[in-house]
Amino acid sequence: MSKETASNARMARSDVSNARNALERGSRGATPRPLASAGGTGVDTLASFVESLMSGSIDVIDLTQPLSEATPMIQLPPPFANTPNWRTHEISHYDEKGPAWYWNWFEGGEHAGTHFDAPIHWITGKDRDDVAQVPVRRLVGPAVVIDKSREAQANPDYLLTMNDIRAFERRHGSLPEGCWLLYRTGWDTRANDQKAFLNANETGPHTPGIDIDLARWLASESPVVGVGVETVGTDAGAAHSFNPPFPCHQFLLGANKYGLTQLANLAKLPPTGAVLLVAPLKLVKGSGSPCRALALVQR
Amino acid sequence: MSKETASNARMARSDVSNARNALERGSRGATPRPLASAGGTGVDTLASFVESLMSGSIDVIDLTQPLSEATPMIQLPPPFANTPNWRTHEISHYDEKGPAWYWNWFEGGEHAGTHFDAPIHWITGKDRDDVAQVPVRRLVGPAVVIDKSREAQANPDYLLTMNDIRAFERRHGSLPEGCWLLYRTGWDTRANDQKAFLNANETGPHTPGIDIDLARWLASESPVVGVGVETVGTDAGAAHSFNPPFPCHQFLLGANKYGLTQLANLAKLPPTGAVLLVAPLKLVKGSGSPCRALALVQR
Repeated sequence: MSKETASNARMARSDVSNARNALERGSRGATPRPLASAGGTGVDTLASFVESLMSGSIDVIDLTQPLSEATPMIQLPPPFANTPNWRTHEISHYDEKGPAWYWNWFEGGEHAGTHFDAPIHWITGKDRDDVAQVPVRRLVGPAVVIDKSREAQANPDYLLTMNDIRAFERRHGSLPEGCWLLYRTGWDTRANDQKAFLNANETGPHTPGIDIDLARWLASESPVVGVGVETVGTDAGAAHSFNPPFPCHQFLLGANKYGLTQLANLAKLPPTGAVLLVAPLKLVKGSGSPCRALALVQR
Repeated sequence: MSKETASNARMARSDVSNARNALERGSRGATPRPLASAGGTGVDTLASFVESLMSGSIDVIDLTQPLSEATPMIQLPPPFANTPNWRTHEISHYDEKGPAWYWNWFEGGEHAGTHFDAPIHWITGKDRDDVAQVPVRRLVGPAVVIDKSREAQANPDYLLTMNDIRAFERRHGSLPEGCWLLYRTGWDTRANDQKAFLNANETGPHTPGIDIDLARWLASESPVVGVGVETVGTDAGAAHSFNPPFPCHQFLLGANKYGLTQLANLAKLPPTGAVLLVAPLKLVKGSGSPCRALALVQR
């Protein structure tokens, strides 16, 4: 959009906003609007957003897998250390330890279930942000969804390539600035079964991922701030054997970008137009965090 | 807003949306818009929302306290069981246990730091939703902020009352449907110091809260879906001695509503017009969860 058209569009929106406010003042007498913004430009897109949310014309979709002792966890070969499985311990349950209340404590890993990879998770990002330092502005943004579930069903080692991105852009337009690239592979259907989810044999795990050239481009040239996947990690199961190994981790985290894993319900999102809300815990010095991921979709 | 004015406002917005789309098509040639919604009504408030987010006219504010071994925890007297402090354990740190990666595991409670109370946390809500069952639509909604930091500084046992709500509504309009009531007391300045945060003496903890009548009204009559506070819990420090005890927990959770605690940065929000995004982990059968809480504010 050129500066001039942007300005026209803003003015047009402002006119309508003023008209709407006048109408609403008329219908409510002197009472101020509950949803009006405090001062500012007069263009209150957030109030329109809330109206759409409340009317159901914007829907909220949960992209998070349930987190429990059954959640599949990555398994690294020796001599590498592994993250423990999620474990829950009851503190009280409407009993003598707490007559009116029920609560638990838990053990778990920063990279358990649907989780967020912060730049310092990888040695290439060691001087970058920990999970508590990630700017919150980058946790809310436009999402694009590339669906390769057919290809991944035929070939569990399927790698997304630059050609796939070019084909997507020809059909749906350029990847928007500051977007999250969500990569659908159909792997979410395996999320309740550790064996099917990791899909390992004598040659190691076989799960879809992203090829080296595309990982490099996403990190250094694309407008993408993070990559989200349905698998246990952003890299392919076979990425330990790539050169360099684990290119998504190496390039994206090294570029102060993010990973997001074990997503659910990507099939419910349009290729473009959704908004991702990704909410890791604010773990001080954390390398990542189990997180809630939600999407907003216009109906 | 009457049905007629709502319809007028929608039509007016639709006109502008069509005009804007036409302008943008003109400026972009035949390329489809990356942010256009997939079908639907033609009124894409989500696309306007994304534009405002990207231009900075909608800001994102972090309402979350950092979570670490220093995070203050509630302390219940015997014979009740307590939640453990947050503890972090290193798995590898770019070393022989993981040459290219750094990660940790942790122990912690469902009610640690900035956290979400699900209905089943309380015996009155035992047949209601656990934290994984809370409808995601109720995790995104309008927020109102009532500031009683001056009153709480003068009296740490200050209780918010129905009169405070009526005074707020006279000034700012009715509480909007589906809103979160965020209650500012200035207690966030104590969040780095367990002793000052819990503020206990020989008669127990002294922290601000909500009185019994207001808690009952919020649960049974108000349009509020949840209450957010800066203190260690939604109830006052002295609420163990109320009749009934812990009225916020008893009434709100019993009504399938929610609590949100240990919030930061409420001073940065306007009294009305902000949007709360609250993101507990999807803990199966969880009574609550440490969470990320963000706010959107129109500039």
